[in-house]
Amino acid sequence: MSAVEIFEVGPRDGLQNEKAQIATADKIALVDLLSTAGFKRIEVASFVSPKWVPQMADSAEVLAGITRANGVSYAALTPNMRGLEAAIAAKADEVAVFASASEGFSKANVNATIEESLARFVPILDAAPMPVRGYVSCIAECPYDGPTDPADVARVVAQLRAMGCYEISLGDTIGRATPEQIDVMLKAVTDVCPPTQLAGHFHDTSGRALLNIDVALSHGLRVFDAAVGGLGGCPYAPGAAGNVATEAVLAHLDAAGHRTGLDAKIVAQAGEMARAMRSPKETT
Amino acid sequence: MSAVEIFEVGPRDGLQNEKAQIATADKIALVDLLSTAGFKRIEVASFVSPKWVPQMADSAEVLAGITRANGVSYAALTPNMRGLEAAIAAKADEVAVFASASEGFSKANVNATIEESLARFVPILDAAPMPVRGYVSCIAECPYDGPTDPADVARVVAQLRAMGCYEISLGDTIGRATPEQIDVMLKAVTDVCPPTQLAGHFHDTSGRALLNIDVALSHGLRVFDAAVGGLGGCPYAPGAAGNVATEAVLAHLDAAGHRTGLDAKIVAQAGEMARAMRSPKETT
Repeated sequence: MSAVEIFEVGPRDGLQNEKAQIATADKIALVDLLSTAGFKRIEVASFVSPKWVPQMADSAEVLAGITRANGVSYAALTPNMRGLEAAIAAKADEVAVFASASEGFSKANVNATIEESLARFVPILDAAPMPVRGYVSCIAECPYDGPTDPADVARVVAQLRAMGCYEISLGDTIGRATPEQIDVMLKAVTDVCPPTQLAGHFHDTSGRALLNIDVALSHGLRVFDAAVGGLGGCPYAPGAAGNVATEAVLAHLDAAGHRTGLDAKIVAQAGEMARAMRSPKETT
Repeated sequence: MSAVEIFEVGPRDGLQNEKAQIATADKIALVDLLSTAGFKRIEVASFVSPKWVPQMADSAEVLAGITRANGVSYAALTPNMRGLEAAIAAKADEVAVFASASEGFSKANVNATIEESLARFVPILDAAPMPVRGYVSCIAECPYDGPTDPADVARVVAQLRAMGCYEISLGDTIGRATPEQIDVMLKAVTDVCPPTQLAGHFHDTSGRALLNIDVALSHGLRVFDAAVGGLGGCPYAPGAAGNVATEAVLAHLDAAGHRTGLDAKIVAQAGEMARAMRSPKETT
């Protein structure tokens, strides 16, 4: 079977949804452990508005504090030029821009239309001295607009690729996608972008992330985002409804005979460490 | 048709899931508008750990700043004696304790077993000079433990009632309950508690909240929690996956001929105001 990469996004997409501020030292410890597990890429920071996403306000400190392993690319989200400048200053190895395939989520997520958000990325792609990855959210279902038209996903993917994103990660942001939806969406998307430049970013809200990964594998995708501990997503269901857990993806890929190059024992330790960072929600 | 009350929980359960800190003045403005809409009870505060739930750290200031309308009870969550003392000092008209029907959620939500959490409530019920409401979370589905046994819900309800809670609100915390599950659960719960001492607290994650309210109405429940703007729940799907929107419940009850005593125009205005308090998520 083929080599498949898991892009670890836990320190960013997993932890950012914790409302209680996690100590910078704890974030650094998690990244340092992950750096020994065999990942090639780890998303560790997000240079977004500290007012809107206070959990990521220490992104520069995290990037400054981690012990960088050879061959590992440490990634950061950069929604705008200010974010890019901060990422450059913090010596992020790669950055990522993020768009949505649905207007409703785009407005709620970044307070801009899809076109406006894409326009913001042009100067980032022009100026970035490092590789830039692209994310597309709501590639199957949007909490505001309902099902997403695969043609809309394909159009945003094509635009991000034309801008120069080296890889585009397709996000089932709310974890409601069915394998059938992923199949139809990927038929449309692989018409405009080779699967080797695509990644799958699945949330496990409905328990279908692994099924959706299998569909993506059948379309030739070989990179999947995942978060140790399955954190992220909905605060009401951490561990169950957030990012698909790296541990689960690893076991699934292993069972199918794919090679990930990851140390399952260290990944499991990191998952435990990440879950221990969750705080009580104290809600109803 | 009968009178049905909507217990407005938006200023607490709706807003608490916003990660960006909402200005105290904005919270007060929302409560003051809601106070003119005809609600008898509005949950406006939560005296939980400010470290774990920073959004609720200004609960005392909110209670001090609002203009209290005659006949409106302003409610606050109180997880422990320290919370009760704060609620008394802030002159909350009523307080609420919150338990879970599933062990997995109890542990994640309040870092205690169900029994431990119930034991914490005994001194609160003994000491509280005001009415105490009880919440039960995960009354049909738990993100950790799967489907909840209706007998477990009934047992927690019976214990909260025996302690002295004047009303117990049954929460489909993650919004996955089906009408069939609600039906079976309510059969068990109404065996131990009259429906006039129960309320329904439904999240609309799966779009079934109104259906579940109808099932609860058929079991004799006449109080439903809702949040203006449909806020709360999952940060990835505000407006779609949080608390069922007060506007939607009101329209649904109106159409069925129930009397709520609410001014739909003011409720709609408050919904707009609440939605405007949402901040961009800046995520993938």
